Amino acid sequence: MGKSKVLLLGEIEHADEPWKALADIGELIEPESRSRADFIEECKSGKLDGVLVTYRTFASVDITGKFDEELVSVLPESLKFICHNGAGYDQIDVKACTNRSIRVSNIPKAVDDATADTNMFLILGALRGFNASMLSLRGNRWRGHPPPTLGHDPEGKTLGILGMGGIGRNLKRKAEAFGMKVIYHNRNKLSDELSGGAEYVSRDELLERSDVLSLNLPLNNNTRHSISTKEFEKMKKGVVIINTARGAVIDEAALVKALDSGIVWSCGLDVYEEEPKVHPGLIANPNVMLLPHMGTWTVETQTAMEEMNIGNVRAVLEKGRLNNIVPEQADM
Amino acid sequence: MGKSKVLLLGEIEHADEPWKALADIGELIEPESRSRADFIEECKSGKLDGVLVTYRTFASVDITGKFDEELVSVLPESLKFICHNGAGYDQIDVKACTNRSIRVSNIPKAVDDATADTNMFLILGALRGFNASMLSLRGNRWRGHPPPTLGHDPEGKTLGILGMGGIGRNLKRKAEAFGMKVIYHNRNKLSDELSGGAEYVSRDELLERSDVLSLNLPLNNNTRHSISTKEFEKMKKGVVIINTARGAVIDEAALVKALDSGIVWSCGLDVYEEEPKVHPGLIANPNVMLLPHMGTWTVETQTAMEEMNIGNVRAVLEKGRLNNIVPEQADM
Repeated sequence: MGKSKVLLLGEIEHADEPWKALADIGELIEPESRSRADFIEECKSGKLDGVLVTYRTFASVDITGKFDEELVSVLPESLKFICHNGAGYDQIDVKACTNRSIRVSNIPKAVDDATADTNMFLILGALRGFNASMLSLRGNRWRGHPPPTLGHDPEGKTLGILGMGGIGRNLKRKAEAFGMKVIYHNRNKLSDELSGGAEYVSRDELLERSDVLSLNLPLNNNTRHSISTKEFEKMKKGVVIINTARGAVIDEAALVKALDSGIVWSCGLDVYEEEPKVHPGLIANPNVMLLPHMGTWTVETQTAMEEMNIGNVRAVLEKGRLNNIVPEQADM
Repeated sequence: MGKSKVLLLGEIEHADEPWKALADIGELIEPESRSRADFIEECKSGKLDGVLVTYRTFASVDITGKFDEELVSVLPESLKFICHNGAGYDQIDVKACTNRSIRVSNIPKAVDDATADTNMFLILGALRGFNASMLSLRGNRWRGHPPPTLGHDPEGKTLGILGMGGIGRNLKRKAEAFGMKVIYHNRNKLSDELSGGAEYVSRDELLERSDVLSLNLPLNNNTRHSISTKEFEKMKKGVVIINTARGAVIDEAALVKALDSGIVWSCGLDVYEEEPKVHPGLIANPNVMLLPHMGTWTVETQTAMEEMNIGNVRAVLEKGRLNNIVPEQADM
């Protein structure tokens, strides 16, 4: 019997050695296609038959499109494992995969520090109103005329974390170093040990009490537009909104309105509803902090993620299982 | 005997009530002058005779120029106290003041959090290379083509703090929340309690070992151009330089050269040698983080600083002494 085939969707940019070492136990192949239509054809043609596991990146969505029901339905019969090189796997319809007995893994933990760091950077920048002054200096106008409005100190402010997973918990520790008081809401209340003693509150109380509201929940059908007009109406006037999770957990148009009306004083965003498109009302607002999805954009974290994802592929080839199966499939 | 005169140089922007309350125990006056030449004339004319204490702001340098030997020599004989509304008092020649028996106060502590927060923001932004991507997004180019170089995580990196005063020590606690290892150099080694257990190293060792070098020392004749060509030559290739102290503790032109040569990977600056002028080699560099001296630019901190400085004026009027005399005059 020949070696199982491993399909690479996207690129290995850092962990070249561990990737090449997989060739000892698997046949590493890549698709010919550069578009979703072609990829679906390639799947149907039988050229990818024999593929047991695929290593895919966030950016490979440009080639295959989302792993939605349509795409999952045309994957080769042999394909039983999808190793996704990221924490958030909203590009993959896990239910459709489960129905076809395909197991999915993601990359938890390795992304926590880099994402929480990005989150804290955005909190500081948005609270302090640094963006306007950075733009003004870059335009050779020093602070500008008139100078920017005074910002706010994080010390003593209430940080509300919606979604207390690995990133939320990591952020909590960092925010406390700045004297922030952390409250959180989560599907389930965590043990005090896990939450680090942060106060658990209802969703409404989180919206009502937060000076800074940070979104750290995964995107799925239940969380899409978690924050929209009716949520903004419950918030403190002058709240700061931070999102490093996925754009669509916020209704981006409603956020722009809440910024314009002054309910939201500022925001710090790393993610957007239709990346790489950003709402023009955000780009036109000099006060808000906007990053182009840089949450894990570091040598150290990208390398650790690739190594961990290669580890998932290796576990499939060697032991027939994933190291980091997604929670929805924990019982599979 | 009438009430002692209090000369306001600059503006009270937040603590209006406590300022007005001073009128019960002092006569609050302002100068007519809007330029240094006029202010020197006004002093010589005798119009300011009877002023016991002056409340001055950093920005009032636009009216009076620096409190250097020339200016101190023309101050009214009656003036015995200068209350400076800031932590750094390099605008004031303390020795010239001492020679005329004029006591000087500054604002310690109240500025520590806001300045250390700015410092940590710049560390994160510079390490991660966020500036280039923020500019690119603002230009409607998402990450740009090619996308920015991958950044670095703070976790596990060595942060060298030069100057372990209130701001340096505050920064140390915050940086450790990001997994940074902190080493420091200071005129004197601190007690372990005060340094929080950070490792004390020589100046050369600090330069040689730091992945990120943060300048948190006051500007004076001994610290001007503390970091110049010969210091850059001792550093690790790829070091990140942060300055929220005063521009002139770094040789700005040498920094631009060290950035261009690649010795310095990036920098984060809040202060410049000739504010509001910024070296064109910095403005033209999309990778560096540049703020226009926003270290204490918050409602909470500005208010606390004004209240503390008014407290110094009140202590003069009520008790004939300053609450926060500068260290050089501790024995006066």
